[in-house]
Amino acid sequence: MSRITAWGVTGIGEVRPGDQVGELVAAACAAEPNGPLADHDVVVVTQKIVSKAEGRLVEVDPDDPVSHKRIVEDEAVRVLRRRGDLIVTETRHGFVCANSGVDLSNVERGWAALLPVDADRSARRIRDIVAARLGARVGVVISDTFGRAWRLGLTDVAIGVAGVAGVVDLRGTPDALGRTMHVTEVCVADELASTAELVMGKASGIPVAIVRGAPVEWFRESSIAEIIRPAQEDLFR
Amino acid sequence: MSRITAWGVTGIGEVRPGDQVGELVAAACAAEPNGPLADHDVVVVTQKIVSKAEGRLVEVDPDDPVSHKRIVEDEAVRVLRRRGDLIVTETRHGFVCANSGVDLSNVERGWAALLPVDADRSARRIRDIVAARLGARVGVVISDTFGRAWRLGLTDVAIGVAGVAGVVDLRGTPDALGRTMHVTEVCVADELASTAELVMGKASGIPVAIVRGAPVEWFRESSIAEIIRPAQEDLFR
Repeated sequence: MSRITAWGVTGIGEVRPGDQVGELVAAACAAEPNGPLADHDVVVVTQKIVSKAEGRLVEVDPDDPVSHKRIVEDEAVRVLRRRGDLIVTETRHGFVCANSGVDLSNVERGWAALLPVDADRSARRIRDIVAARLGARVGVVISDTFGRAWRLGLTDVAIGVAGVAGVVDLRGTPDALGRTMHVTEVCVADELASTAELVMGKASGIPVAIVRGAPVEWFRESSIAEIIRPAQEDLFR
Repeated sequence: MSRITAWGVTGIGEVRPGDQVGELVAAACAAEPNGPLADHDVVVVTQKIVSKAEGRLVEVDPDDPVSHKRIVEDEAVRVLRRRGDLIVTETRHGFVCANSGVDLSNVERGWAALLPVDADRSARRIRDIVAARLGARVGVVISDTFGRAWRLGLTDVAIGVAGVAGVVDLRGTPDALGRTMHVTEVCVADELASTAELVMGKASGIPVAIVRGAPVEWFRESSIAEIIRPAQEDLFR
């Protein structure tokens, strides 16, 4: 029977520009009480440390909201909505999110973290280093915390993937009553990110979690493009 | 260190109008190889079996799309968007979702399942029966599978809660660098639903999952109202 276990990886420490996240993850996981990583584990890494390691930091005047706003607009290809301090934008990656994903929390005062330029690439690099150091073929999800148009509270979603599916297509598989299902494409990468968030916790400073037990058939080449709804299919932009 | 485990509960069998889901869950969990439920477990139950047990089934002509469409419109307080077969509506609960949550899959041909009238009440009833039968004070999440405006693939979210938080408010708690965080309200109920989905699988017919290891402080009186964004705050309706 399927069973999923998730735990936060401690001991990553403060991440600095130039660090290789894959090396930090491999070292921290090798020292984990849960034992080293295994094939088909999913390593979920929060965007924040990926952005820091990749030097995606810009100066911001913490006492001047306009300074933050300018950075948000620079990161956007389109501003969709504004209300008060909130700006909902489309980023150049195609994400629709608050503030272009620009984040001031868990970053030193005076700095803002931008989204990685290509989080799929970041994820592949982590996957490859983990494979080289620990001999484990893992999936990697880079996660970020997004709001939703019609629901309160934030959840973690995937912004980059490597080695594990973004969306799993169950269309055409019979449902439990033997009827062919209409549309059930499940965004397992987002669900893996949400699972990881439950053990990371925003205030606890744990930037990496492992999810063990995902079905073997989810592990394959993948891209965040599986998850980004094309603008022309969007009913709400 | 925090650790979450989730597993699907087998042996629930086919659910019929008049069944008490709490009794089915208690009996199935008592027979589980994972052992009986414990305090602070979260029981995630898919909407489908709750709707069936509560008799929320209506006849539909499987060969006539108009028949389905009429039911969807009856369940809506507002139609937000239409494209082809897809109708995005606001339900009387306040959910914005495809087809008013009316579902044809995993229901016998010729029938459609409507959302429970009050899924918080459904959740409380399950919680209370589990407490009476097994002596465990659990949280309950009723889950359903929703699409998202800007992301492809579906994820499971909460449509009713009891005994476990909808949204956990981390505002004002210091982040890992000791700075006060701006806004981090995490929708843990949706993340718990997504975690459960990973072990249920649409095609496998497992309608209940247990998530063990959520922080004790998340267990409290709650309501889906914590998660439904009020229409007047909505930027996209």
